[in-house]
Amino acid sequence: MSLNLTILGSSAALPAIGRFTSCQYLELQNRYFLIDCGEGAQMQLSRFQLSIPKIDHVFISHLHGDHYLGLMPLLFSMHLNKRTADLHLYAPAGLDEIITLQLKYSKSVLNYKIVFHTVDTTRIQLLMEDSAVTVESIPLKHKLDCSGFLFREKQKPRRINKEKLVGGITSAQILQLKAGENIVDENGNTIYRYEELTIPARPSLSYAYCSDTALNEAMVSQIAGVDLLYHEATFVTADLNKAIETKHSTAAQAGEIAAAAQVKKLLIGHFSARYKDLNQLLLEARSKFKNTDLAQEGETFTLAD
Amino acid sequence: MSLNLTILGSSAALPAIGRFTSCQYLELQNRYFLIDCGEGAQMQLSRFQLSIPKIDHVFISHLHGDHYLGLMPLLFSMHLNKRTADLHLYAPAGLDEIITLQLKYSKSVLNYKIVFHTVDTTRIQLLMEDSAVTVESIPLKHKLDCSGFLFREKQKPRRINKEKLVGGITSAQILQLKAGENIVDENGNTIYRYEELTIPARPSLSYAYCSDTALNEAMVSQIAGVDLLYHEATFVTADLNKAIETKHSTAAQAGEIAAAAQVKKLLIGHFSARYKDLNQLLLEARSKFKNTDLAQEGETFTLAD
Repeated sequence: MSLNLTILGSSAALPAIGRFTSCQYLELQNRYFLIDCGEGAQMQLSRFQLSIPKIDHVFISHLHGDHYLGLMPLLFSMHLNKRTADLHLYAPAGLDEIITLQLKYSKSVLNYKIVFHTVDTTRIQLLMEDSAVTVESIPLKHKLDCSGFLFREKQKPRRINKEKLVGGITSAQILQLKAGENIVDENGNTIYRYEELTIPARPSLSYAYCSDTALNEAMVSQIAGVDLLYHEATFVTADLNKAIETKHSTAAQAGEIAAAAQVKKLLIGHFSARYKDLNQLLLEARSKFKNTDLAQEGETFTLAD
Repeated sequence: MSLNLTILGSSAALPAIGRFTSCQYLELQNRYFLIDCGEGAQMQLSRFQLSIPKIDHVFISHLHGDHYLGLMPLLFSMHLNKRTADLHLYAPAGLDEIITLQLKYSKSVLNYKIVFHTVDTTRIQLLMEDSAVTVESIPLKHKLDCSGFLFREKQKPRRINKEKLVGGITSAQILQLKAGENIVDENGNTIYRYEELTIPARPSLSYAYCSDTALNEAMVSQIAGVDLLYHEATFVTADLNKAIETKHSTAAQAGEIAAAAQVKKLLIGHFSARYKDLNQLLLEARSKFKNTDLAQEGETFTLAD
């Protein structure tokens, strides 16, 4: 198992030549998540040969156009391509009304159901949970109600140490051992100790998506230690005044957050169209947090457990 | 003077690889018109180096997503690029509400004014007129209220025949002659005859945009003799049942309309994504009307007067 994150767009408000606006495709435990959905998302999904039908959950951080205007075209295309499975949509209040109005004027009744989940951007909320993963909201500081998303694999079972396995253990007992329980006989005596017969579980991977936000120290404790952090880096420090005015971050601030949260790796994105050369943003972030890469479209970042 | 039409997209409902959905850029008498605005229009405008600030009039045929979902991103980008000039928007009822709702949820107040003009799709309407051009609506037959657009240069003045021009004629008299009036003296005697001193005006160019529509013979008289007709050709004749069901046209039907209206040239577009090879559509249309071309994105069609 692994985590695969593909960047479909990472340009800020205006698309720059060769850079689409925010959109990411995350594969985690055979779940497929779309994170933000800037204009042209469906074309990028096709271009990078990512499966659209597999997407069951779409997370929209906020209602600035560069984060959601690719959604309505995608929803229509899913309909035309005969989707029938429910689609779960997580977004701040308003997106449901925007979609419903556009369906009304196109006289469309989709052949699948959209399940709207309204995100309360003021607090940490468990948005989704199933047998293998959880997704929490991350309150961000922006001009509009805005939320990041924290994707986590659930704790995995311990693994059987095949070298130590002895005969006569039942399947039910193996499940107990993997869950970290000793096997006892009818008299209460321990006959197999889980610590002897199993090795620790594979680590649970985690990914935090944080766009758009001003410097936001409040989220450091929530994202502490994640394997991968995507943090917006709209500006260089020389344009700090613009970052403050528009409630965005500089690349250096993204690096500072990554360092404070002791994450394993940082990706920066949401680049202002004013920068043709992204290297200055990268160098600035790396001056604060070394293990940083640019989130450039078409790239896939893979974490193996 | 000339007419320049650039195709930015001509795919039907679903974008196909390398084909964007409907959008065209028309230059006529130094006016710049955007006709329909499918997803990614602003990126196509940049890609083909067409001026976005010069666009003062946007015509939307109907509210199926493939004809208007590139508009909201374009409107936001015009705002971010500091547009201040009014933008005139011609569309069936509903688009104003869709735009206003999205501005509300993004807490945006545009720094330019959108002037909405609601198109009554049931009748021919003069949508716009200035000193040099007129734009009329063309009622179409589709599943939604839908209108095409007829762009015409106004009749131009006659031209002075420089070889015949004699001395002593005032500027005011030249304007009279160009307008087709004889010059008379105070006694009412003709002293200069316009037919002798001028030659006929350059012809006035015309362009009719007709997408989306089922076979619509009712419009033939309105578009009769136009220099250029764009007519949708979503399907080949083998898929006629699909054309009828979805209220679209076949390529052969597009050719039949062009022949009946005796237009000078036909462009076909709005190709279904099911056809990888567009040549079959072209051959079918040409079997009914010889002077036919495919409206493929990135191509510019120029008519000189």
